[in-house]
Amino acid sequence: MKQKINLKLLGVIFSVLMTFYGQAQPPRGPYVVSPKVNPDKSVTFSYLAPNATNVLLDGGQFGAANVPMTKNAEGVWSVTFGPIKPDIYPYGFKVDGITVNDPANTYLFPNERFKGSLVEIPGDTPAVYALKNVPHGTISYELYPGIEGSTGTFVIYTPPGYTKNTKTKYPVYYLISGTTDTEETFWKVGKVNLMLDNMIAEGKAKPMIVVMPYGNPMARIAEQTGKEKPSDVMSRDGDDALKRMKLFENDLVKHVIPFVEKNYRTIPNRDNRAIGGFSRGGGQTLRTAFNNVDKFAYVCSYASYISPAEMDKNFTNITADPAKTNKDFKLLWSGIGTEDFLYKGTTEWENYLKEKKINVKTFAIPGGHTWMNVKQYLNETLPVLFK
Amino acid sequence: MKQKINLKLLGVIFSVLMTFYGQAQPPRGPYVVSPKVNPDKSVTFSYLAPNATNVLLDGGQFGAANVPMTKNAEGVWSVTFGPIKPDIYPYGFKVDGITVNDPANTYLFPNERFKGSLVEIPGDTPAVYALKNVPHGTISYELYPGIEGSTGTFVIYTPPGYTKNTKTKYPVYYLISGTTDTEETFWKVGKVNLMLDNMIAEGKAKPMIVVMPYGNPMARIAEQTGKEKPSDVMSRDGDDALKRMKLFENDLVKHVIPFVEKNYRTIPNRDNRAIGGFSRGGGQTLRTAFNNVDKFAYVCSYASYISPAEMDKNFTNITADPAKTNKDFKLLWSGIGTEDFLYKGTTEWENYLKEKKINVKTFAIPGGHTWMNVKQYLNETLPVLFK
Repeated sequence: MKQKINLKLLGVIFSVLMTFYGQAQPPRGPYVVSPKVNPDKSVTFSYLAPNATNVLLDGGQFGAANVPMTKNAEGVWSVTFGPIKPDIYPYGFKVDGITVNDPANTYLFPNERFKGSLVEIPGDTPAVYALKNVPHGTISYELYPGIEGSTGTFVIYTPPGYTKNTKTKYPVYYLISGTTDTEETFWKVGKVNLMLDNMIAEGKAKPMIVVMPYGNPMARIAEQTGKEKPSDVMSRDGDDALKRMKLFENDLVKHVIPFVEKNYRTIPNRDNRAIGGFSRGGGQTLRTAFNNVDKFAYVCSYASYISPAEMDKNFTNITADPAKTNKDFKLLWSGIGTEDFLYKGTTEWENYLKEKKINVKTFAIPGGHTWMNVKQYLNETLPVLFK
Repeated sequence: MKQKINLKLLGVIFSVLMTFYGQAQPPRGPYVVSPKVNPDKSVTFSYLAPNATNVLLDGGQFGAANVPMTKNAEGVWSVTFGPIKPDIYPYGFKVDGITVNDPANTYLFPNERFKGSLVEIPGDTPAVYALKNVPHGTISYELYPGIEGSTGTFVIYTPPGYTKNTKTKYPVYYLISGTTDTEETFWKVGKVNLMLDNMIAEGKAKPMIVVMPYGNPMARIAEQTGKEKPSDVMSRDGDDALKRMKLFENDLVKHVIPFVEKNYRTIPNRDNRAIGGFSRGGGQTLRTAFNNVDKFAYVCSYASYISPAEMDKNFTNITADPAKTNKDFKLLWSGIGTEDFLYKGTTEWENYLKEKKINVKTFAIPGGHTWMNVKQYLNETLPVLFK
């Protein structure tokens, strides 16, 4: 039976409920459904703003930067854009010049700074990151005794069957998100959990645990001590950046890893530890791996690098004996988009390694510094870890 | 060593990074820290909007509805408000009439409709929901085979030591959030995990599992089948509302509970199952409990009720034999705020039960239909479950 829904009535009821939720300035008026993915892969975006004079769709990552929307009689602005290439994208609206996310959409991009909404356009065949009818792993949030007396936070994926196969021990991938991302971003945007569910079901990836640490423990310390919260944004070079990288590294190596290995069934040796990350997380990955060669055998840099100058200054341990390094690292992987603003630096670093006779597996694809690309890097690397 | 941070430079770097994150219209200009909780419990809120003509703080739940903010030379609007009574509150900004959350604040209120930011004002002594140095439980996200072939989602809290005490079985509290809330709201806003960590550490509550289902499985089905997403808002009465309540009940009883009892170490009998919820979740709680007396011995309604007319029509199984009902339910608990818009209906229902000689433990406190009040209801009920 098809249910008839009186959208206008729902809107009124909604307004009443929202008032009592005490939410400041609740949307009033008709009930808005947004985004609506259409069968032809176009998407209809809608936003209620009866009094606005100009509303734009703000979806630069799918080619919809500043697309004008039109208002209907009820004050709902909308536009249908596309077809859009199947993927998961952030978007928002510009309402009289003010950037907002989509209040009708539950799914947000977890980030310290921007609060974009997320839209997924499914393909004709399910993507590698699609929710499929396969056994699912579990995502958990842990609090652990972190650096400088803080309580740290990380997210952890345990593979399907983890709870049942109570004798099985698993390798662990430590996977670090980018500047201003949070410990939630790799699963809520990167979909690493669904990708592994699918890959494990098809026998394409080894069952593994994935630990997603929070990349900026200085901010966590400040939150908990009432100190001024430091910037979660930093330059990628310079002493301050390196100091923070070191703090992260110490937290990971001295706090996160011991906690994980104490509380989860892991195989606690370097051949069964991988480390990877995106953007700042890629920088943290490389420095942590190069400073702790005894700890990680698999290293994946997603859109990041270390400058040749810093390599020469700090990481001669890696370059001095390439045969040893090539034996130590079962995988040293570097992926980058050709439109990524870090493309030049990344290729310079890759070439530097090659000149030094260090084996590095490189992967360049179209695209920018985006999480659409990150999913492609995951798709390349997850199947080759621990093999 | 105190670090000097060049906020202006950081802002510029941030803008560059954000551009490459592809985020539409990133904030540009100085690096904003917001909210900043001051030692006197006032809070300084800041928002970057050089071109706005009017920015208001939108924090009605702490008495700051439409408080004007002032702009500095760099285009940052700010206001210091308070002292504010220690608690966790939602807030946002009204920028030239457009409601936005705080882009500088990581913490958002998980909700299908509004996207408020959250600020916590700590008290002089740590609140019962404060992060303390005690053993912590784990929050996990599960995907389960849900109703009508959908993949359902719930969040689950396992108590400290769950992983280690591999023989121990636990009672389970099924805890349902309100209209437009999500399965995340009871932990990210209600802090039920930290409350239980603290109460268990002090011996005040029994170690228990808490399962937080998603309250609107119809929407989940629609999402996954590509059907028009139905409203997540509904009237609390009427056939449509009751049909959805029934769908939820079936999903909980036939899918969630069996999945939990198969995959977690529970004590699978009615004396070790509790059910509770807030607002719509309270309505779902009462109907599910009254339709499944064999399943739950503890029932907690947080700001909700069933009308006497519906009780008379559908729940004579509860009222016909009060002695049996009073024996069946080890706890039937109803909490409400005296300013809650459901106060009148709730007290009418409580009085109806009392006239029918049904034991109901009632709890009325100041406050509205808010999550500040929900934490107080949790504080009252968690210690008395399973005892």
